[in-house]
Amino acid sequence: MSQPAPHQPISEELRAKLSRCGAATISNALLKRGYRNTFLLGVQGVAPGQPAMVGPAFTLRFIPAREDKDTMALYARDDGLHRRAIEECPPGAVLVMDAGGDARASCMGDMMALRLKMRGVAGVVTDGGFRDVPGIAATGLPSFQRQASGPATPIALHPVEFDAPVGCAGVAIYPGDVIVGDGEGVVAIPRELVEEVADEAFAAAEYEAFAAAHIARGRSIFGLFPATPDSRVEYEQWVTAGRPAIV
Amino acid sequence: MSQPAPHQPISEELRAKLSRCGAATISNALLKRGYRNTFLLGVQGVAPGQPAMVGPAFTLRFIPAREDKDTMALYARDDGLHRRAIEECPPGAVLVMDAGGDARASCMGDMMALRLKMRGVAGVVTDGGFRDVPGIAATGLPSFQRQASGPATPIALHPVEFDAPVGCAGVAIYPGDVIVGDGEGVVAIPRELVEEVADEAFAAAEYEAFAAAHIARGRSIFGLFPATPDSRVEYEQWVTAGRPAIV
Amino acid sequence: MSQPAPHQPISEELRAKLSRCGAATISNALLKRGYRNTFLLGVQGVAPGQPAMVGPAFTLRFIPAREDKDTMALYARDDGLHRRAIEECPPGAVLVMDAGGDARASCMGDMMALRLKMRGVAGVVTDGGFRDVPGIAATGLPSFQRQASGPATPIALHPVEFDAPVGCAGVAIYPGDVIVGDGEGVVAIPRELVEEVADEAFAAAEYEAFAAAHIARGRSIFGLFPATPDSRVEYEQWVTAGRPAIV
Amino acid sequence: MSQPAPHQPISEELRAKLSRCGAATISNALLKRGYRNTFLLGVQGVAPGQPAMVGPAFTLRFIPAREDKDTMALYARDDGLHRRAIEECPPGAVLVMDAGGDARASCMGDMMALRLKMRGVAGVVTDGGFRDVPGIAATGLPSFQRQASGPATPIALHPVEFDAPVGCAGVAIYPGDVIVGDGEGVVAIPRELVEEVADEAFAAAEYEAFAAAHIARGRSIFGLFPATPDSRVEYEQWVTAGRPAIV
Amino acid sequence: MSQPAPHQPISEELRAKLSRCGAATISNALLKRGYRNTFLLGVQGVAPGQPAMVGPAFTLRFIPAREDKDTMALYARDDGLHRRAIEECPPGAVLVMDAGGDARASCMGDMMALRLKMRGVAGVVTDGGFRDVPGIAATGLPSFQRQASGPATPIALHPVEFDAPVGCAGVAIYPGDVIVGDGEGVVAIPRELVEEVADEAFAAAEYEAFAAAHIARGRSIFGLFPATPDSRVEYEQWVTAGRPAIV
Amino acid sequence: MSQPAPHQPISEELRAKLSRCGAATISNALLKRGYRNTFLLGVQGVAPGQPAMVGPAFTLRFIPAREDKDTMALYARDDGLHRRAIEECPPGAVLVMDAGGDARASCMGDMMALRLKMRGVAGVVTDGGFRDVPGIAATGLPSFQRQASGPATPIALHPVEFDAPVGCAGVAIYPGDVIVGDGEGVVAIPRELVEEVADEAFAAAEYEAFAAAHIARGRSIFGLFPATPDSRVEYEQWVTAGRPAIV
Repeated sequence: MSQPAPHQPISEELRAKLSRCGAATISNALLKRGYRNTFLLGVQGVAPGQPAMVGPAFTLRFIPAREDKDTMALYARDDGLHRRAIEECPPGAVLVMDAGGDARASCMGDMMALRLKMRGVAGVVTDGGFRDVPGIAATGLPSFQRQASGPATPIALHPVEFDAPVGCAGVAIYPGDVIVGDGEGVVAIPRELVEEVADEAFAAAEYEAFAAAHIARGRSIFGLFPATPDSRVEYEQWVTAGRPAIV
Repeated sequence: MSQPAPHQPISEELRAKLSRCGAATISNALLKRGYRNTFLLGVQGVAPGQPAMVGPAFTLRFIPAREDKDTMALYARDDGLHRRAIEECPPGAVLVMDAGGDARASCMGDMMALRLKMRGVAGVVTDGGFRDVPGIAATGLPSFQRQASGPATPIALHPVEFDAPVGCAGVAIYPGDVIVGDGEGVVAIPRELVEEVADEAFAAAEYEAFAAAHIARGRSIFGLFPATPDSRVEYEQWVTAGRPAIV
Repeated sequence: MSQPAPHQPISEELRAKLSRCGAATISNALLKRGYRNTFLLGVQGVAPGQPAMVGPAFTLRFIPAREDKDTMALYARDDGLHRRAIEECPPGAVLVMDAGGDARASCMGDMMALRLKMRGVAGVVTDGGFRDVPGIAATGLPSFQRQASGPATPIALHPVEFDAPVGCAGVAIYPGDVIVGDGEGVVAIPRELVEEVADEAFAAAEYEAFAAAHIARGRSIFGLFPATPDSRVEYEQWVTAGRPAIV
Repeated sequence: MSQPAPHQPISEELRAKLSRCGAATISNALLKRGYRNTFLLGVQGVAPGQPAMVGPAFTLRFIPAREDKDTMALYARDDGLHRRAIEECPPGAVLVMDAGGDARASCMGDMMALRLKMRGVAGVVTDGGFRDVPGIAATGLPSFQRQASGPATPIALHPVEFDAPVGCAGVAIYPGDVIVGDGEGVVAIPRELVEEVADEAFAAAEYEAFAAAHIARGRSIFGLFPATPDSRVEYEQWVTAGRPAIV
Repeated sequence: MSQPAPHQPISEELRAKLSRCGAATISNALLKRGYRNTFLLGVQGVAPGQPAMVGPAFTLRFIPAREDKDTMALYARDDGLHRRAIEECPPGAVLVMDAGGDARASCMGDMMALRLKMRGVAGVVTDGGFRDVPGIAATGLPSFQRQASGPATPIALHPVEFDAPVGCAGVAIYPGDVIVGDGEGVVAIPRELVEEVADEAFAAAEYEAFAAAHIARGRSIFGLFPATPDSRVEYEQWVTAGRPAIV
Repeated sequence: MSQPAPHQPISEELRAKLSRCGAATISNALLKRGYRNTFLLGVQGVAPGQPAMVGPAFTLRFIPAREDKDTMALYARDDGLHRRAIEECPPGAVLVMDAGGDARASCMGDMMALRLKMRGVAGVVTDGGFRDVPGIAATGLPSFQRQASGPATPIALHPVEFDAPVGCAGVAIYPGDVIVGDGEGVVAIPRELVEEVADEAFAAAEYEAFAAAHIARGRSIFGLFPATPDSRVEYEQWVTAGRPAIV
């Protein structure tokens, strides 16, 4: 079977599923498949209530700036990769910016965020930082960073490449990997596993809702969470019964 | 006089007092007694409005994980110490988890937090991190961590021991020490000092309210804060007078 | 032409301008003049909604504490520099506290913040931390720190000097430099540049509002942001036309 | 089959083998068995030429100090755990000190090192630091630390426990695990694997000597290192031939 | 004039000059030309007496490992980029490995170092770490790292690309840039500037020898170092006079 | 009794005593007097065999550089504080440079070190870094730094003040405090305590030599180290007996 092309948008159904699982639950489904390092530690959303972010990764790689290549004049040119990324990141994709963990200069400001939002980009994540954070939050674009950073990009960062494999917050990101970000954090799913991981994580999240209802009524986590064969039977019967209120 | 047993719940009166002093004021009362290192630096609550946390420490110690001892299967067993801690931490106690400052894997998720809440545990603090942070916040359990951490516990952490003396965020915690956490942070009070520290800190907090009312009307902090013999007389007279409005 | 004396209050007009530009935009105007290191990285406001802070810097320098000079008794004396700074920082000024990046003890508590607020001080910034953060937020004094810190000042910090040049969060601060802090962060403007920087940054912010309106309607950032000669003509015409609604 | 008791000394043959493999080669043999986290990152020997260290782990766990329990007077008592560890660590064992990564106070000085050396202890490793480092080096006791630390132990560290499982430099250490330290660093081998790991690592080191002789004569690493089936046949023939000079 | 091809070996004369200037003096010549960020901070040589390293950069970029792509079996394949880099780095070049600052796994071991040495590679630098450091030192290959790292490469690092622009220890490295490493550290010279920088740095080093001889006889640095117009005349006369002994 | 003026040279006898005690033993004598924070953590000598450094502190304070004040031209002027410090630091004193822990630019190079050496300055310590480290080591000037740093001073550091109280590596340094640096590290002694601390530390070091001789012959540290009343009697008798060989 052929591999989906990078950035091929994911289906609405898949997006909906992934946006409701929780990033941590998704990382568990990946761990079961042997992937231990999929959660981007140390990045957080710019606004508490921002919507979940789901989409294939479009990557931009930065290296440290150098004075001959990183002037404000060169930066402003339309063929600069940083600005081109804002115009060329595919709608539905997540722009992943590898800043080498350097938050001494910004990876994005509010104008760029607004443009990404208008273009239908699903969100942005960097292991560096953003400037104009309140303005970015106001655009509604789901955005994740390590630490706010006001200084202009060319002070410390030089964009070199689109859609190479990169590292971001210590996690390998290959173009097309599906990135999910929510209130729990950001996780990267290898593209070829996204369907099965989404199914499993969604099922796990549904089971968790069942378990939570029981725990909220005083039941122990023993024999209930994580699920046991018995509790799984109980759960299936409850689902079959039309998910009656748990009292 | 005999020593109170570890975890012996503290009285409602004591709890009420400590929850109203402020963690920083409590640390001052400890400093007067020669204790310089009682404030857990770098940990913060998962939700801005969470209630104050007061209770004797029940400790859980983690060490780094090892692949033969830290599989998901072993983790799920009911005799695993991590899961047992959730079921065995005494009601009214604060679960203190020493993660060695490692936030690469989680110390608690929302199911565990909900169970602790239902069991009447007073709160949780770790120098590592939690997963499902929005879910934890939703339980209302006062919870303090260093940094959110989505990955599953066995990826990096192995639970080894209950109720040993531990370090948490650089502070020594002995079982039964009284832990207070609020919007200012988290402080640990040696158990045998808790009554006198609570009294002194509470008195200091009441004096601060008096001083604040004066400062808010334009008075200098000189001769007022910190209290002087004269200002203390003034305060006592004001208390005796029934705390009339300060205008 | 004579140099303005340090702390000479800045005009209301200048303050108003600077409070509306955004700290990141101000740092850009400084970068154009060759100043690359003007943004205080890693400090943040104590409350999301706090007002913008604008004023000339009044500095206080700390060094590490030493047990013979940093007792609570000495700390409480009215001739202690820390307490004097609270009473002597000029109204309209910003109190900049160089803690050497050390957040193991606090630089300010809520009583001090309240007094500064009542005295008309414009705000406070430190590369260390504050105690009683919720209380500070309640005073409404714009306050920026690196990390909350409950322990009493004398545990780790000793005040040595007023109004010396200092470093704060890696940026040189000379007395009288104009400090601007808002939701984007904190920036320091060399005093002699403040008028021209304010004008330029304000103009840039106004242009950004124009650009944002276009971007919000789907226009590309190419040829629009950063401004080009053509887009600037377009902008001027729009201003001349009375800034009609952009649809 | 019964488990060897913790600290049971390892045989001279095993010690000799392990001291000649190289810590990195040993970590490879562990990786093949699924153990990814066995190398203590960030610790180094106190002297360049110190002998290799091999022995079962005897652990000492520290927590942060507290002023009532960590005075110099209490420290000097013969029942203090820190001093007892120096007298009770079994000959042939490696003393592993978990300092929680804290090098603000020392874990050992030269008197202690000399005593350990005289008692036949195989070496010492900590993720904290030592004082009197030149003196320690002079004793000849193989000693590994994170960073030199002059301050007295009770300033920051309190000893709480012997021979509990601990973490040291991010690696789980169970009592009796065999610790190997040399110019490459320090590695921990789960006790039950030590024989097979030693055999495999020793064989790998011998193959490396063969490969190095070829590389030193200009041969490519392709087809030679890591070993291939063909190169392994070649190696076996060379061994059978009595390891003739490679020219 | 056409640009030299990347990796075109530099002349013996240039190499000799650069190896005698000192990395810090070279960085000064770059600073004069506006390059402020050319010195790789935090890396150091594996052996005190290793020879100076001079050569054009051949880069290898790593990203974080992922379990499906970074097994030991895949690692051992001859088409793996890490192993290919060892066989393909041009003689005379410096292998620059961008490990993203991650020293949790090794970038090179002694077999690889020996092969590079035999192939005539000029040296190696990484912002990660090496394993088998004593073995690497024994090869005589000039090698610079951030921190020794025993674990196998695939535990944390995945090689993705040759000769892309990379960052290493916070400095931009473009293929062909000339890298100089010595007892002072490592500096990167943009390829097009190498001749003029070498000339100027060499001249500066010669002047420093003159100045040092005077300082060693008690002369002040004022009027001597840095050079003044007068001292430069004095120096030229001394050179013209055949550099007589300074007494 | 009047206070010794800052920098008043210390007597040869005192210098000799302090150079033979060991920095860690000195810190113990300070701890007995209540001084817990006197050891400069994280700094180390530039050369293993460099002589001990003893002298009163002459301080130089740096702040972050700013482009208008920190050009190479301004740097080279004879009235620049950095260069003046090299010419004005009193013979016999220790130059203590507070770099705010910033090693991104150098605090001293080999020309400066040579000049200090020729002028009879006792040594140098900074919490930043030096350039030309091999050259500095060659001068024989005892020099302690945090990390080597090749870049020119004005890239990151601006000198602002002589002989103010400063922090260096987290320790308060007041002008005239006596600084002792050796193979164990660097310690700061408040000037008024130097005589009694030297006496006590010297006596402790002599006792340690006695204890070491016993330990080297197999005696336990119990009852011997730290000294007990009995062991002290034994020591005094041994001293009285003319320190006969311990066998």
